[in-house]
Amino acid sequence: MSPMNSYDAFLSPLGRNLHESVLRKMGQVIASRGSDLISFAAGYPDPMGFPWNEFREIASELLSGDDGSVLQYGPTRGYRPLLESIVRVLEKRGIRADLREVMTTSGSQQGLDLAARVLIAPGDVVLVEVPTYTGAIAAFRNAQCRLVGVRQDADGINIDDLDAVCIRERAGGSRVNLLYLVPNFQNPAGILLSLDKRARLLEWAERRNVLIIEDDPYGELYFEDVATAGETRPLKADDRNGRIIYLSTFSKTLAPGFRVAWVAAPAPIVERFDTAKQSMDLMCGILDQRVVHESIVRGVLDRQAAPLRTLYRMRRDVMERTLREQFGDRLSWIQPKGGFFLWAKLPEGFECEALLQKAMEQGVIFVIGSAFCVDGSGHDRVRLSFSWPTADQIREGARRLAAAMENDLVGRV
Amino acid sequence: MSPMNSYDAFLSPLGRNLHESVLRKMGQVIASRGSDLISFAAGYPDPMGFPWNEFREIASELLSGDDGSVLQYGPTRGYRPLLESIVRVLEKRGIRADLREVMTTSGSQQGLDLAARVLIAPGDVVLVEVPTYTGAIAAFRNAQCRLVGVRQDADGINIDDLDAVCIRERAGGSRVNLLYLVPNFQNPAGILLSLDKRARLLEWAERRNVLIIEDDPYGELYFEDVATAGETRPLKADDRNGRIIYLSTFSKTLAPGFRVAWVAAPAPIVERFDTAKQSMDLMCGILDQRVVHESIVRGVLDRQAAPLRTLYRMRRDVMERTLREQFGDRLSWIQPKGGFFLWAKLPEGFECEALLQKAMEQGVIFVIGSAFCVDGSGHDRVRLSFSWPTADQIREGARRLAAAMENDLVGRV
Repeated sequence: MSPMNSYDAFLSPLGRNLHESVLRKMGQVIASRGSDLISFAAGYPDPMGFPWNEFREIASELLSGDDGSVLQYGPTRGYRPLLESIVRVLEKRGIRADLREVMTTSGSQQGLDLAARVLIAPGDVVLVEVPTYTGAIAAFRNAQCRLVGVRQDADGINIDDLDAVCIRERAGGSRVNLLYLVPNFQNPAGILLSLDKRARLLEWAERRNVLIIEDDPYGELYFEDVATAGETRPLKADDRNGRIIYLSTFSKTLAPGFRVAWVAAPAPIVERFDTAKQSMDLMCGILDQRVVHESIVRGVLDRQAAPLRTLYRMRRDVMERTLREQFGDRLSWIQPKGGFFLWAKLPEGFECEALLQKAMEQGVIFVIGSAFCVDGSGHDRVRLSFSWPTADQIREGARRLAAAMENDLVGRV
Repeated sequence: MSPMNSYDAFLSPLGRNLHESVLRKMGQVIASRGSDLISFAAGYPDPMGFPWNEFREIASELLSGDDGSVLQYGPTRGYRPLLESIVRVLEKRGIRADLREVMTTSGSQQGLDLAARVLIAPGDVVLVEVPTYTGAIAAFRNAQCRLVGVRQDADGINIDDLDAVCIRERAGGSRVNLLYLVPNFQNPAGILLSLDKRARLLEWAERRNVLIIEDDPYGELYFEDVATAGETRPLKADDRNGRIIYLSTFSKTLAPGFRVAWVAAPAPIVERFDTAKQSMDLMCGILDQRVVHESIVRGVLDRQAAPLRTLYRMRRDVMERTLREQFGDRLSWIQPKGGFFLWAKLPEGFECEALLQKAMEQGVIFVIGSAFCVDGSGHDRVRLSFSWPTADQIREGARRLAAAMENDLVGRV
């Protein structure tokens, strides 16, 4: 008898081919490095913006011990009053849903994983934008599908390309059932999908018999100088035919640490997701659900939105101004109208992977553009998050990035 | 254009064949029925036993706002100081693990799901006891394996049968890599696996090149009149060769609402689980992790164990005494030496499914034995949980159960 060295023979096909989230790996880099590191990588909200006093008061009341269910097992679908609160949150976004059509998920990441497991068969083609969110890439790839990229314009996905890709893949014999989209202030490109395209996408989904996963973590964080609430209207609000699986979360407006997100989808889909979640983690943390519910009921969530819009808009302004100062027109980007991210194009000849090495030497990190692109592109792009670093850190980070770019250039000359 | 009626064509093979957890369904019955219902079904801890004051104090301190990371995104593997605390908890159980060998999971259910996804290939045979835990049945079946049952004796799994089944299934061409076990106060049978069999199982796993998933939620809840801490020693404590994937949780000793559990396994396995969890839910709730960590550090967890042992032992005593009074020798069972469950054999001619209907009419529920048995048996068994109902409820529930059995008999005469 001797200790085992390799477990490869024990792995499932999935276990052998797991896809790592690049963002999660970057998170480990941040954690292992000292506090001098400036991160444009993590898409974290600023904890300064969390309503600490309200959370503390709510948690204190909930943990009085008067109500045992606060820390007990509960229904997989979610704490019933929270589901009712979510229905009201949806109403404010123009979405009418009943209780059969909503459920809680352990972060939107679990919504993606549920969609992947319940809706994606091995070999399926799933359509995504280029670029798209890495967490979706990882969850979908783990369902052993093939991700096929669709071009993106300044006002969101290119619908002609979308249709062409769909027709082409189906002609090639593939099952194409799903399109994944982040319509509001997309991760990573920061783009806002136009209202016109939203209407056309609904019509397209019907015509091509496709379901759309609409991932909407950032919708409430529009920047009032360039965007309005009306422009963030979810596709789901006009989904007459049950084509949209809508995901949203309290991670950006309350706090990510609670891991409370939700799905709004046709009842038969929610039914399946519920059954799948039973064997995945039974339920979301119930204290977390209760705190979120109370935060909605007491108006904390509503009061959060305006100051957060201001906070993140100011951060965007600092980042745009500073990048202009440091880089002139060597970096280019489409102005983010909301959300957390700026998607910058590097000057001719630079590659994000090499630049990241130099940047880490200078004490600043970002996420490489190629991580978001399923078609092998993105090497000339970087995702810079302005949500977490302070104004000073943004300025210092941009200086370090400029130095890194200088070194990268010198190294190659 | 018209609303969709059926989404069947959009489902994955898994989506079409999801396995529901019977226990979760029973939970829905409880929730939908009034408070007059007495539940011997739910394997819930008693919230009276939760350390509310300590939780409230800890949560209040954590939510001061001084430390933003309390509600921020964090590492998938878990909050580092909590992982260090878990290593110390494991030490007290005789298990030596380092930080590469532990990770947090969103309940032990996620540990089961991780094992299912990373280690089970479609078509694999997974060995389980008859009876075994329904949550494991659901998670494993969703990985499209075949579950094959092994006989259980009063001191745990029958190792001769185990070996015979393994040899037979391999001879039939199946991949047999995994055995799932709940050695301490098994759910549902309440059985304690003997120390002798633990040693033999380790030796067997090595001889047959199998990994064992050791699920240990109840180990600390041994009843001191008939069991000792030494008898609950995990297989993992003597796992010299890296054969054991050990799952445990704070759900029964602190509170289930936090959804904080953990895996201790060989580093290469934990590495894969970590990667898989990234795309499943990113991380466990961080406030929950912090509360659990502080509860360990401040000695709350250690102080919990003794009173909980007393509480649940008293409940078992009430249930055993009351069942004797109500049923004489018409019901039989092996005395639970710990945990939450009593596994009762019905009199000749009774079936648990029909009895459950009659029981619900009387206002008492239990879980049908067949839900735990992968070989189609168990129709003459019921799982009665004594952890949640009060002594009065246990007595009243047993009366109702007796009336239900009377009615069931009358109905068939």
